[in-house]
Amino acid sequence: MPATKKESQRREPRRRRGEVLDAAVRVFHAKGYDATSIQDIADEVGILKGSIYYYITSKEDVLFEILKDVHDEAFKTVADAVALDGDPLQKIRAFVSTLAKFNADHPERMGIFLHDFRSLSDDRRNEIVRERDRYDRMLRKLISDGQDQGLVCPDIDPKLATLAIMGMINTIYQWYRPTGRLQSKYIGSVYADMVIRALACSPETHTPGHLSAEASLAT
Amino acid sequence: MPATKKESQRREPRRRRGEVLDAAVRVFHAKGYDATSIQDIADEVGILKGSIYYYITSKEDVLFEILKDVHDEAFKTVADAVALDGDPLQKIRAFVSTLAKFNADHPERMGIFLHDFRSLSDDRRNEIVRERDRYDRMLRKLISDGQDQGLVCPDIDPKLATLAIMGMINTIYQWYRPTGRLQSKYIGSVYADMVIRALACSPETHTPGHLSAEASLAT
Repeated sequence: MPATKKESQRREPRRRRGEVLDAAVRVFHAKGYDATSIQDIADEVGILKGSIYYYITSKEDVLFEILKDVHDEAFKTVADAVALDGDPLQKIRAFVSTLAKFNADHPERMGIFLHDFRSLSDDRRNEIVRERDRYDRMLRKLISDGQDQGLVCPDIDPKLATLAIMGMINTIYQWYRPTGRLQSKYIGSVYADMVIRALACSPETHTPGHLSAEASLAT
Repeated sequence: MPATKKESQRREPRRRRGEVLDAAVRVFHAKGYDATSIQDIADEVGILKGSIYYYITSKEDVLFEILKDVHDEAFKTVADAVALDGDPLQKIRAFVSTLAKFNADHPERMGIFLHDFRSLSDDRRNEIVRERDRYDRMLRKLISDGQDQGLVCPDIDPKLATLAIMGMINTIYQWYRPTGRLQSKYIGSVYADMVIRALACSPETHTPGHLSAEASLAT
């Protein structure tokens, strides 16, 4: 079947390119992007340095491609979860649990996404920063929507709360090990619990300024 | 007064050494530790490269000294706040508001503390990691104490909650600018509010598993 053979010939370079990117993730994670050479990536794949240029053009291209891939996948996962029916509080839960789980499932790639993007050239760095801002905007909007519907405490600053929540999530890659006692789904669920408790407001449980009495110690 | 003169002669190198460390903080922050040379630090201080070795012995020494300084100061600030009278919830509030404020007040130094410590040699890196663990242990203990006294929800995992809270705080340096609209004390207070809401439990407001109904969307 010649058609199939042709197709497999077309697929082969793409498969090989995927292997090169996966190898680069491992090496960047282990050595750091700055200290990694194209030779290191070739060694990790097990091909000659000369051959690797068939699949990639430069170290920065590899980094940029990894960052685009991880962002596309993470953002799609989160956007799909948030698009399900629900009120803003349920959507915030979906956002946090899904993104926290994704971070725990991909600590190496998220570490590169959240840290090594600084090594990109200006244009490409700005593009990644713009894409990272999409998570912040989505969460900020959900918090505002929750306030409009009386579900999120009105005294919360959506922008500051977003930064705090993204900080919780964006540091998971620094400590999470898939071989440890905790499953990624559990992390997502616990983080979502904490965030919902921190944001949720109901007339029964919330008295405006109910926390200010405790503030005296720290001021 | 010869005694005074002698004293000022003794003080002069120490003052100069402080200037060298401050200059190093600025250069590490702007260029990154790996990309910084001793020459860059000398240029920033405005002395000759040869003269700088009178104050420091190597770039890694400078980094280690900066990390020790920032840790000593941050830890003392937090420990003093937590040592004040109060129940565990009040102490958690003091811990979070004080450490978040410190992070916002010193974004350049905290960035180096939280990121560039990776560039140290093994022994020194381990020492910094041990010192960073002291914050985690202190907070974990306060959360456990709060649970023992019925103030913190019993279904919270103290270790995981600590990692989440430290993630919130340890990313402030990435976005906080002292020239922006927010004051560091306000950041500390808002972060502490969110953490207390996320952790605090009272028989009136807490029904065990009250959040699980919302979890269905994300699972």
